[in-house]
Amino acid sequence: MQALGLFGNIAAAQSLPSLPRNFGSGKSVVVLGAGIAGLTAAYELQQAGYTVHVLEARNRVGGRSWTVRDGDRIVMNGEADQVARFSEGAYFNAGPARIPSFHERLLGYCGKLGVPLEVEINSSRGAYIMGGDGRKQRMRVAINDTRGHIAELLTKAVNQGALDQSLTPEDKAALLPFLKTYGDLDDKGGFKGTLRSGFKTYPDAGVRSFAAPPEAVPLRDLLANEQLPATLFEDNVYMQATMFQPVGGMDRIAAGFQRALKRPVILNADVQRVRNGDRKVEVAFKDTRTGAMRSLSADYMVCTIPFPVLAKVDCDFAPPVAQAIKNVVYDHSNKVAFDAPRFWEKDQIFGGISFVGGDTSLVWYPSAGLFSPRGMLLACYSSGERAARFAQLPIAEQVERARAVVEKLHPGHGGECANGVAVNWNKIPYSLGPWPNWYAGMAGRQEGTIDTDPYRLLNQPAGRVIFAGAALSQTPGWQEGAIQSAHGAVADLANLQRADAVTQPTRIAA
Amino acid sequence: MQALGLFGNIAAAQSLPSLPRNFGSGKSVVVLGAGIAGLTAAYELQQAGYTVHVLEARNRVGGRSWTVRDGDRIVMNGEADQVARFSEGAYFNAGPARIPSFHERLLGYCGKLGVPLEVEINSSRGAYIMGGDGRKQRMRVAINDTRGHIAELLTKAVNQGALDQSLTPEDKAALLPFLKTYGDLDDKGGFKGTLRSGFKTYPDAGVRSFAAPPEAVPLRDLLANEQLPATLFEDNVYMQATMFQPVGGMDRIAAGFQRALKRPVILNADVQRVRNGDRKVEVAFKDTRTGAMRSLSADYMVCTIPFPVLAKVDCDFAPPVAQAIKNVVYDHSNKVAFDAPRFWEKDQIFGGISFVGGDTSLVWYPSAGLFSPRGMLLACYSSGERAARFAQLPIAEQVERARAVVEKLHPGHGGECANGVAVNWNKIPYSLGPWPNWYAGMAGRQEGTIDTDPYRLLNQPAGRVIFAGAALSQTPGWQEGAIQSAHGAVADLANLQRADAVTQPTRIAA
Repeated sequence: MQALGLFGNIAAAQSLPSLPRNFGSGKSVVVLGAGIAGLTAAYELQQAGYTVHVLEARNRVGGRSWTVRDGDRIVMNGEADQVARFSEGAYFNAGPARIPSFHERLLGYCGKLGVPLEVEINSSRGAYIMGGDGRKQRMRVAINDTRGHIAELLTKAVNQGALDQSLTPEDKAALLPFLKTYGDLDDKGGFKGTLRSGFKTYPDAGVRSFAAPPEAVPLRDLLANEQLPATLFEDNVYMQATMFQPVGGMDRIAAGFQRALKRPVILNADVQRVRNGDRKVEVAFKDTRTGAMRSLSADYMVCTIPFPVLAKVDCDFAPPVAQAIKNVVYDHSNKVAFDAPRFWEKDQIFGGISFVGGDTSLVWYPSAGLFSPRGMLLACYSSGERAARFAQLPIAEQVERARAVVEKLHPGHGGECANGVAVNWNKIPYSLGPWPNWYAGMAGRQEGTIDTDPYRLLNQPAGRVIFAGAALSQTPGWQEGAIQSAHGAVADLANLQRADAVTQPTRIAA
Repeated sequence: MQALGLFGNIAAAQSLPSLPRNFGSGKSVVVLGAGIAGLTAAYELQQAGYTVHVLEARNRVGGRSWTVRDGDRIVMNGEADQVARFSEGAYFNAGPARIPSFHERLLGYCGKLGVPLEVEINSSRGAYIMGGDGRKQRMRVAINDTRGHIAELLTKAVNQGALDQSLTPEDKAALLPFLKTYGDLDDKGGFKGTLRSGFKTYPDAGVRSFAAPPEAVPLRDLLANEQLPATLFEDNVYMQATMFQPVGGMDRIAAGFQRALKRPVILNADVQRVRNGDRKVEVAFKDTRTGAMRSLSADYMVCTIPFPVLAKVDCDFAPPVAQAIKNVVYDHSNKVAFDAPRFWEKDQIFGGISFVGGDTSLVWYPSAGLFSPRGMLLACYSSGERAARFAQLPIAEQVERARAVVEKLHPGHGGECANGVAVNWNKIPYSLGPWPNWYAGMAGRQEGTIDTDPYRLLNQPAGRVIFAGAALSQTPGWQEGAIQSAHGAVADLANLQRADAVTQPTRIAA
């Protein structure tokens, strides 16, 4: 697989089988859902010779990989429609908005499909952490002053002999000079402030002004900012530089897949009924523009419909599968975005994220269109319980709360944030949530690893139907997970076909 | 001044005076040198109404802000010419190659002059540190495993009560949970490895593979890598995200100034003689293409010629000034660049720097043209004594040594590095070095602050001549310093003119 060959050095499971070009000749597949998983499965099955039809309930492809632009309508269950009014060229990635360097499959498809990428600035030393009391520090101050204090304390402990049971004299001889560099300590091992945290006075030409570091923020004050742990965010492996975004919006990836499909995705196709036969699958769907019912049959189905949506579709899955689908609980996630003049860039913040806690969690500055007059400011991105509560507020209140945080963080600029829009993923038709919480309601939820019985069950073919989507990966919030799942679906489908060939030797090609 | 207004919140000395548009009407200035300082001075003096002539010895503007492209000739004293053979679109910034977010004057000019900028990725968690023994760690491993061990050690010391004289019980209650997050420690305060350092096994779809962190590298092994301090490089305030580069090469800035000058820069003008008269300055220069001598006179001169070059020009400065010029010692700096297929991107390195120590210091990956087939790899950038030694090697040997380090760092790829070129700034005509070392030969050299008698002297007007250049700023290696110095020169020139108006009331305009 070229996409992997271009980027791989991680020992990822090679889940996409290498199928002969005519492996699927004469066989048909219907793919439900044109998000990244559905599009990937459709594309790869097409490459293997299958006849592929893709049904998509929305009037666009991409699923959660959704970019909102001027004039776009945000439809949410139980809310009045919002119509985006953004500056020319501005866009809001309502779903995924960044790609790590190691998401080699997704990056590989971008290369293969001709989707230009640019740097997504996920971390800026000019951004802030702001505590609930409104006190804030620049990232450069929070990171470097904290490290200075920690290096000073550890130097003191080592010099006292407190760690002699852990460190040999040789270890200490190597560690102490490193700690001096680590914390930018003075010759006595003290931390008195560092130029890494910025300038108290700025270097100029001549002797007008010399560089001097700011006073060190006391460790106590740093620890009192409950957002201090957010200084570690940039070292979350999914968040580490270098990160990318498609030029022009995340939906350029889905558009790239769409271009590569021989049969156009059937849009506005609201799936109403699924029948999982011995020899065929059948799907009935309503054209949401005309109300007309249509149906398709195929040898196999790849179903990427989110489980809360699928739970409401008339399907004939075996009872344990049907029950598992009904039991999957989805998380909450919200984003609030504004069109604004780039006041943050005048404050020397170019991309990156300020962490503010609370219901809105962050202020995320755009990496697109740097130095242009206006840009999209993401003033809320949160998930979990706080997101569930926030989504219960009226939309106008959500927007105003996000604006108020911007005002607190960037005094005088909250009012410049125009035309705010809010996306509550649990209200988005055909999504009904951002990703599943597979451990919802279970004791001992294990963060970061998904291994429950329903998850295992739905990761297996149900007759001729194979479920796929980021939801069925270990990284349900990432497009890479959707691709991994789609690759697994292709493998499962190939295995079903091989089994069919054994059990149905006389079967006539459809 | 708009350039400052666009970006400023640092309390920089406001050295550029706000001059009326006709302040310099009827007055003339000759600017020697079309590097960033000379171009800035010329531009600002033009804006204030002066008649400005700029003389430049080279056949291009920009000075050290020099971008080498395919077909360009690298001429160095005592060496055979090198002709660059680079892929289409590839370029090599032989001088400055990055702009910090807080260099607001330079960024302001880029905006004003229409120079598009893009992100310069100065730090990547995928890059390496490599010790002299060839052992290397990814940045993500070096940074996060080091922090893990330090957090573990400090936790241990705090729990032992070793720091009870420095920390109150309340401090400890705040510090300990933070240290757990800081180092990604286990519940007992132990560091056993972290996903921040990458994956031992990779999260996939289904249950094929789960994310697991790599084993922690022992602290002893981390400390044994003498490049470990380079993990702090990204927190040097000049090196912090977000950083920029002009799209297409650093010389786009000089080109922008050139476009904005009403009178074209006089190229190939080798200054031979400077006469500092009571009422006029006179300069004689040779056209290096024809050998013809020409001369110009003007009311004032801004001289940005590097001091080792100026020391060889026939000037009539007062003896202390002439002696100061002769005494300035310049540093050494080298760069070696290759055109190569982007093997580093297949290793998931996109921009950023690997630190390798030794004569070549680093391997710096391009931020331009990400994901394209080929790019420029900077395989040496070093200064100081090691650079002085390296520059004494034959060019072919410099290139081969740089290639050998690439091979050690990226086994199997050294041979893919093609058409290497080396720039030794001390051999570059009309530069003769990258920047001065103002403390050369003095005891007690003070890093980072420049305040010597010669520096102060040359920062003062010498009759009608005002010296300028990054050399006369506190940041002689940065274009911002050149701009600051040029702004100071404009202020000094305005003051000279005001003094002239007092002492020469009957003077006839030139």
